[in-house]
Amino acid sequence: MRSGKRDIPAKNSEVALTDGKSGLPPQDLIDFFKNSDGFFIAIHLSPDGDALGSACALGMALEKMGKRTMLACRDSVPQQYVFLPGSERFLTFSDIISRNVDIKSYKNLVLVDCNEIKRTGFEKTELASTKFAASAVIDHHESDSLFGDIRWVVPPVAAAGMLVYYIVDALGVTMTEPIASNLYTALVVDTGNFRYPSTTSEVLRVASVLADAGANPYNINRAVNESWSEGRFRLFVKVLGTLSINDGVAITHVTRKMFDETGTSPDDTENFASFALTMKEVKVAVFIREVGDNHYKLSLRSVREVNVERVAALYGGGGHKNASGCVAQSDLATLKADLIKQLGG
Amino acid sequence: MRSGKRDIPAKNSEVALTDGKSGLPPQDLIDFFKNSDGFFIAIHLSPDGDALGSACALGMALEKMGKRTMLACRDSVPQQYVFLPGSERFLTFSDIISRNVDIKSYKNLVLVDCNEIKRTGFEKTELASTKFAASAVIDHHESDSLFGDIRWVVPPVAAAGMLVYYIVDALGVTMTEPIASNLYTALVVDTGNFRYPSTTSEVLRVASVLADAGANPYNINRAVNESWSEGRFRLFVKVLGTLSINDGVAITHVTRKMFDETGTSPDDTENFASFALTMKEVKVAVFIREVGDNHYKLSLRSVREVNVERVAALYGGGGHKNASGCVAQSDLATLKADLIKQLGG
Repeated sequence: MRSGKRDIPAKNSEVALTDGKSGLPPQDLIDFFKNSDGFFIAIHLSPDGDALGSACALGMALEKMGKRTMLACRDSVPQQYVFLPGSERFLTFSDIISRNVDIKSYKNLVLVDCNEIKRTGFEKTELASTKFAASAVIDHHESDSLFGDIRWVVPPVAAAGMLVYYIVDALGVTMTEPIASNLYTALVVDTGNFRYPSTTSEVLRVASVLADAGANPYNINRAVNESWSEGRFRLFVKVLGTLSINDGVAITHVTRKMFDETGTSPDDTENFASFALTMKEVKVAVFIREVGDNHYKLSLRSVREVNVERVAALYGGGGHKNASGCVAQSDLATLKADLIKQLGG
Repeated sequence: MRSGKRDIPAKNSEVALTDGKSGLPPQDLIDFFKNSDGFFIAIHLSPDGDALGSACALGMALEKMGKRTMLACRDSVPQQYVFLPGSERFLTFSDIISRNVDIKSYKNLVLVDCNEIKRTGFEKTELASTKFAASAVIDHHESDSLFGDIRWVVPPVAAAGMLVYYIVDALGVTMTEPIASNLYTALVVDTGNFRYPSTTSEVLRVASVLADAGANPYNINRAVNESWSEGRFRLFVKVLGTLSINDGVAITHVTRKMFDETGTSPDDTENFASFALTMKEVKVAVFIREVGDNHYKLSLRSVREVNVERVAALYGGGGHKNASGCVAQSDLATLKADLIKQLGG
């Protein structure tokens, strides 16, 4: 794995995006897409709608330019997102290995919605020794990493889908309904349906352009947010039943037994974490998922003015200021008490 | 009460709105606002964010033109919406009567977010004999009514707030942050936060313009949708515990006892009705609220392709295709069985 290094993104593009008016991808990124061929587009493990939609859209746009692309992820596309046009093109790393897929001709690596190779899980596979000719990074997460020959990492931007929108535009590719639907999904997922602080007028403007190009807000929202199984709904009711509130910190948990009783899996808990923020007095919501005996995975969510990344870091985790995660080895009661001590007040 | 009659709105404005591009209010409506003074702006009883935000915004725009306006409603502004700029100007009909407020100089009646005087509750008060010089109607609900000298009733439009946005624009009033926040709230409330089928590219474009003018999507969403009391949240958990699903029909109910146990009131059940539509297999969600012994109020919500207005009408109620209401006198078990029969399959 070649890991080119380069400084943080061109200042002019950062400024353009931060002032919320228009996105201007770095010229070297645009040249990279125009002048190269064979793109291996990889996204982070446990992919979400932003990663999947952004990668599908970028792949489609490049294919329309006559380029060859491969979409890859450690994990398969979650059921919730199989509706995304082109998502059937995703290969898992296991698929690539077991089917002996030749990836040598996809010699340009593109990371989407993550900014270091570690986030893809690629390095832990037999593919790790693959040599790429060049690498580009398109992401909106905070990062200390310098991975990538070309980096376009703009943390204030709501979604990787915004950046891909600007790239599609800069490449001169006509916005089609499938590209628009992928990007609209990316925006919906990473802005919590236009609810998070990252929802700027520019996000809404781009959403409007995408809807104009054929993305259907109702259908996409129904597919992304309103396609719960009855089991998932029953699980949700059980999880809400565990709610405790102390000092503005709401804690809920899910056990392996609850999954069994409702025929569900951890995938079914997406967005459970933030639900308790619906309450005015709740500033932090913690969702605890039992992974094994005294082994828990935590999702921390907070209102804009509270930073939970700090506490996730205490447990060896990380994420964003208002959305972080970590794991903990402890019994549940002690863990909850510790969390209230760390987060409360 | 003078009840001028006039035909349905000018076709050109309807077409302009239906094709989702731009709104063109009828010229007589614009002339009415420009050439008259003293506007009595009334909204429907049990006001929601669209009615309140639209009326506040219209009132502000007219005041900026040097016009005198009065905002009136049968009911006081719900706690959830007191954050709306200018909402403190609302008078209830009881306020007007008890304080002997002179409304004679507000001789131009404007109905917002409703299209017949009946929906305001005005006619059941001592004020009913008030004579207005002229009346205008600005609404997006289906209607057989011919009430109003000037009617701008455009059912396909997502919110009355959209219509008021076009009016403010046509009046040449500069969009200010308070006007924008009121209108953004109207859009958020009546599109279910950009989730309903009425969410067009045009709605998103207007939302973007409003955010550009200072409306804050995060703050507004937090105020409208994420300011639940803990009691309301506990009530929600209890209501979810009553869920039954038959033939794609999800039914939940709330009893007076549950309100007592959680220190809540019927106001706290807003949006409970549609929550079960989160499930993929659920096409209709019915929320039953106990009003008295064997006396229930029903809210019916459905996915786009199912019409619940038909069933609400069987019970003497009405509303929209996908959101209707009615009352029923029955015991709960019989009522639920009847509903499944009427709505299922």
